[in-house]
Parts: sequence; structure tokens; C-alpha cells
Amino acid sequence: MIKTMIKTQTLKGFRDFLPAEVKKRQYVINTLKKVFESYGFEPLETPALEYEEILLGKYGEEDDKLMYRFEDNGKRRVALRYDQTVPLARVVAQYQNELPIPFKRYQIQNVWRAENTQKGRYRELLQCDIDTVGASSPLADAEIIEVADKSLRMLGFRKYKIKVNDRKIFENIDLESIKILDKLEKIGPEKVEEELARINSKETLNKIENSKPLETTDAILKMLKNLGINENNYEFSPTLARGLDYYTGTIFEIKIEGYSGGSVGGGGRYDNLIGLFANRQIPAVGFAFGFDRLMEAMEEQNLFPANLNTTKVLVTVFSPELLDNSIRVCEILSQNNINQELYVDPNAKMEKQLKYADKKQIPYVVIIGPDEAKNNTVTVKNLKTREQKALPFDQFLDLFKE
Amino acid sequence: MIKTMIKTQTLKGFRDFLPAEVKKRQYVINTLKKVFESYGFEPLETPALEYEEILLGKYGEEDDKLMYRFEDNGKRRVALRYDQTVPLARVVAQYQNELPIPFKRYQIQNVWRAENTQKGRYRELLQCDIDTVGASSPLADAEIIEVADKSLRMLGFRKYKIKVNDRKIFENIDLESIKILDKLEKIGPEKVEEELARINSKETLNKIENSKPLETTDAILKMLKNLGINENNYEFSPTLARGLDYYTGTIFEIKIEGYSGGSVGGGGRYDNLIGLFANRQIPAVGFAFGFDRLMEAMEEQNLFPANLNTTKVLVTVFSPELLDNSIRVCEILSQNNINQELYVDPNAKMEKQLKYADKKQIPYVVIIGPDEAKNNTVTVKNLKTREQKALPFDQFLDLFKE
Repeated sequence: MIKTMIKTQTLKGFRDFLPAEVKKRQYVINTLKKVFESYGFEPLETPALEYEEILLGKYGEEDDKLMYRFEDNGKRRVALRYDQTVPLARVVAQYQNELPIPFKRYQIQNVWRAENTQKGRYRELLQCDIDTVGASSPLADAEIIEVADKSLRMLGFRKYKIKVNDRKIFENIDLESIKILDKLEKIGPEKVEEELARINSKETLNKIENSKPLETTDAILKMLKNLGINENNYEFSPTLARGLDYYTGTIFEIKIEGYSGGSVGGGGRYDNLIGLFANRQIPAVGFAFGFDRLMEAMEEQNLFPANLNTTKVLVTVFSPELLDNSIRVCEILSQNNINQELYVDPNAKMEKQLKYADKKQIPYVVIIGPDEAKNNTVTVKNLKTREQKALPFDQFLDLFKE
Repeated sequence: MIKTMIKTQTLKGFRDFLPAEVKKRQYVINTLKKVFESYGFEPLETPALEYEEILLGKYGEEDDKLMYRFEDNGKRRVALRYDQTVPLARVVAQYQNELPIPFKRYQIQNVWRAENTQKGRYRELLQCDIDTVGASSPLADAEIIEVADKSLRMLGFRKYKIKVNDRKIFENIDLESIKILDKLEKIGPEKVEEELARINSKETLNKIENSKPLETTDAILKMLKNLGINENNYEFSPTLARGLDYYTGTIFEIKIEGYSGGSVGGGGRYDNLIGLFANRQIPAVGFAFGFDRLMEAMEEQNLFPANLNTTKVLVTVFSPELLDNSIRVCEILSQNNINQELYVDPNAKMEKQLKYADKKQIPYVVIIGPDEAKNNTVTVKNLKTREQKALPFDQFLDLFKE
């Protein structure tokens, strides 16, 4: 039954997350969830696999190729979730009598894209979306931006800019010129002017750069001020275009100062998409963090807590004969809600057990040898300072409560 | 671009989880994580898609059909994660120099099975696994059982039985008889005896029922006692066989009293599987909860907290002119870490806003009308009791801090 020499590797663009990495990811996810929920956004989960025709509903031919599509055992054409917006549109149509309107939901699940892999591009990636469905007021747009702002603050970012604009500002400009304008950040104003000149649209950049915010944008900026958002963290940006052509109104994007990986998130109003399956127009505004970029920026700016380790103390086993003493200590720790771990090989040398604690970055170890057993004490060793002291059985707990 | 009349449905065996359901699931997941981590188990995540040959490594022909397998755009044969044990085996081989040994990990991810759907059987299902890899001591087995016990307690279960046995008890019994014995719970002793008689193995049941626990089982039961586990919650069960033939030692299974959906979890020692990819024997013991059954049992026994709702108060908007007052209240609530939600349509009738709060089960609403604005008060309405009172601006906060 056992096949040997199978190569142990993951598919290109797919990743294993070992414990230290998962803890960091969970830290960010939990922080975001908490913020989202504090503004009334509620969690939604949809299946990884859907009917292909549902997921293809929104996309042009180019994107089709990027989807994982196949035929299942029942000869159904199915596809892996490509984004979280199309499933949201399906859910809104399917449960329209059950959902509160406005429907404010967050969704934090993986999506799969058969893209060419390159630095920072993966085929399995986590998306963090918030959307407000069924509200057309700019207030909903402002709230989404507020949540994005609060999320960044809670993660520890201070220097960032939320650039706000409205797609309607480009109303009299052709799509091709908008696409060139969208590259401003990437290729710089000179190249943009050059490209615009090539399509006889040379004056566009200058015209756009001098635009005033639309009335809606003004209203949103005023609300952001009233909501107490730091004025250094948002600004009107007339050249912001955002690639996706489904936006119909407000658009915004976040740049973190000092992080070169590009925008860590963005969103906007898209009033024509959510009604796709319900066959009527349903206004919506939303936002998504690029989770991998967010993680990268957190790492670069050292924003993760110093110790995400969950275990406080390793209870070692001195010898099989003294196992019951170690078990007793574990029980006491457990009853006092102190995260502990018993070394599960009673025959292992103490040195091996200490190395294990080091590798798992457990801050303390407890040793109960023959002396300790006789004197009703435990020896507690701080693995960072390498200090150790013997403490009576009824006192050692205090050390971990600090 | 918009295609109409696409049927809005999920694939058979796949489920949407709307907010109320996700919150229940998250409650259980968070409880389990907390328990797992309190015993030093750390989170691992592996990709949804893997090379087919890796996932097929373990399974016989029958299971192959149950896997979602296909060819990706790069002509690679790939498959969706079918369980979390084979990926664990791959990870242990692939990162053997990085992982601490024993490697104690938990993994809570979806798996996909192209099974026939029936009551309680899904094609996308969440698995909750804990495993200790690289420890052969019965202490590791006892710890896994302890974690299972603690998990059930933390979820609120009190009346359950962890049945413990060892596969070695069946050493002199043929596989066919074991398979029949395994149905004892399902079809009862008479039918089992009947089936055993048919294969000339009539005396097997009697012989097994009168078996004494093996030495290892005895050691584990003693440890469970020392670990302070309630003796009503575990027992030696000589007829417990567990279907999967990869178990090599200790096996156990959990039955919840009064829940008829079958065992909510089980596990055991499997010393020959994890070494599959590393090409050497690596001992392991593990446990998995059947998440859907656990949810069902929780529901039946009313173990979910009464209110998993996350929003404490809806701040209504009396009129567009008074919007800024509502925004000010939101800001105060937010600064005080009270989960609040602003109704994002300033033109909506108050009645509609109250209905929205009801639908989302938000316990309080705040109203700031012209009187309140003039007198610097807010009106707070308790949606359960329907009581409402006007409170000065500096006092209404106290109401939510209760």
C-alpha cells in the first residue's frame, strides 16, 4: 500500500503555513474580524465549488482562463471560488427574503486563481472583503472607508493614505485613457503623458489632475472628518482610476508609507453587479484587503506582537517514575487556565526536552526531579534569562500570572 | 455582459452559511482552538489543492472515486484535500528539520468528498484534527483523549462517554469479523452474532466482550484518572473496533448521551502512516471531531450562548439634517469599544430602521431626533422590553456597559 519516493512538494502558487506563520495570519484575521464586527458587519461563508455558469456570470473571456474549472463526477461543470463578490451576488438573490437590507457582510475565505505565479502572486490566496449591499447613500461609502481606516489603526499602521475619488470624474474620458491614467503610480507622469499623447489624449492628465472632487466625494470627505478620522490619512486623488471596470461611483485605495509592494487594499461603489442574479439593480459598496500584502507590510514595519506563542510553560518529565508528579502540576496549571504542555515522552533526556521548549519558544519550563518531589517544590526555569528557582508547590503559579 | 436567469443554487452537498450560522460555527471553532492551544497544539494549514499522487498515496481504489480530481491548466493531475492526515504526513516529511518533535498540531480546514449526499453527509465539510507526531508513549494517547474531554466540557457537554480500546486486542481475529464487530452499535448484538455465525466466527463477540484491557490501555486509563478526568466520562470498551484499518494501537470514540447522530469524534494511534513520505516509521496518535455532528449535538442540547450577536446598538438616523448628531454618537460608542452600527440610509423611515435592528437581533437602538439634539440627550430603546428613555449625552454610555 505504501508508495515510496513520491515527491513531497506543494503545487506552484500554493503554500503550507507552519504554526508560526498561521499564528501571524490568525492575529491579522482576528483583528480584522473584530473591527468588522464592531461596525455591524457579519460573517458569510460560501462553498469553495460552485456551478461554473454562476462564477462565469461576471467575467470576460480573459478571466475565464484564470479560473480552476472542471467536470465533477456527476458531469456537472464546476469551478473553484474566484472571488467573493460573485458568490455574494448569488447569496443576495437566493436569500433575499431572509437577509436584512442593507446587508453588511464580511467574508474571509480563500480564492483560487490559475494565474502565472510571480513575486507575491499566489494561486490560493486569502481574501478579506467587506460589503454593504442595498444602500445607495454616500454614508455607506464613508462607513466602508472608516472600517478600512480603523482596521489599519488596529493593526498598528499610522502612516498611510486612503486615496478617494469617483469613477464619474472620468465620465467624458474614453476607457483607454483611463487605463493609461491608472498606471500613473506605476510608470510615473512622464510615461503616462507619452502614452496619452500616442492616442491623441495628451491633455487628459493635466485636465484630470486639476479636477475638483465631485459633490458625492465632497460629502464623503466631510463625513470622514466628522467620524474623527485623522486628516493625514485620507485625501482626494483625482487621478485614482482603479482597474476594475465594474465600479460605478466612489473608488478608493490604500497606500502604506514606506511599503513598496503596492496598494494593500481598495474598493468602491459598484451598483450594477450585485443585482446580476436577482435581475434588478441593487446598489453596493465594498472593500477588500490584499491579505498577503498586508502581511508583508506588517512584517516590514515590525507590527506583529513580539510573542504570538500560545504555550506559557512546558512541564518536563524527569523520569517515568516521576511522571505522576508532572501530571499533577499540569492539572494545577490547567485548572488555573495557564496554557501548559506536558512533554509526552517520559523517557526523553532533560536536554532534549529543554531543546524542544526552545524550538517552540515556550518561555518557561517546569522540572520536578527527585528532590523537588521530596520537598514538595517545583523548579521553574526561565528559558530567556536561563534563571531557575525552586518554588513551593503553592507558590509557583504566581510566576505565570504576571 | 449580464446574463439573466442563471439558477441561483449551490451544488448538492455544498452549503452557504449565513451570518447567524457562521457565528455558531465560529463559536465552536474558537472554543476548540483555545483548548487545543492550551495543551500546546499549534495550528497548521495546507493547500486545498495538491498533486493527485500525494493525496492518493494512502487510499485504496474505493476512496479514489470519492476524491475531487482533475487536470489543471498546466496539465498537472491535482486533487482537492480529502482529509488532513495525508497532508500532515507530507508536511512532516517536507519540513522534518524545521518542526519540533513531537510535532503537536491542530488543523481546522475544509475537506472535499464526492460522496453520495444523505442526511448529515456533505461534500464540503470542516474537519477539526489534533495529532501528536513522533511520540510513541501512551502518555501522548492519554493527552489526546484529555484534550477531547476538555473540548467537550468547554463546549458545555457533561454526559458523554469516551470509549477506549486497542486494536491489538483483535490481533487473532480476522478483518472480516472485526468489520462485523464494528457494527455493534449500529445493528445491535443479535444481528452481529448472526453475521458472525454466517462466517463461522460465532464465538468472537462473546470472547471479545469478556476481554480485559491490554497493558497499554490500562496505563492510559490510569493516566486519565491522574489527569483528573471525570470517571463517568471514559471507559474501556473491548468491542470498539473503529473502521479505518490504519490504526495500530489505542483507539477511542466519543458518544454523547441523548444524541442519536452517532459518534461525534474519534481517533487513535497510527504508527505506520505518517512516515509514508519520509520513508521511515514515525509514530503518531490523533483525534478528529466530526464538526457537523458536534454542531447538531450542540443545537439539540441548547449549548450555544443565548446571544452570539456582536452588535450592541444600532444608531438610527432621524433625518439627513440630523445625520451629524448620529455620527457623533457613533464616534463616542466606537471610542468606548462598544460595538455599534450606524444605519447607512439617512432617508429611511424610523420604522424601517427599527425593523432592521430587530432582524439583526441588535438589542438597543439609539434615536437622536430634533428634541434630543436640542436638549443634548439621546433616546435609548431596548428592543426586547420595548422600553425607552431619554438620557443626557454624558450618561447613555453606562447603559451599554452593563
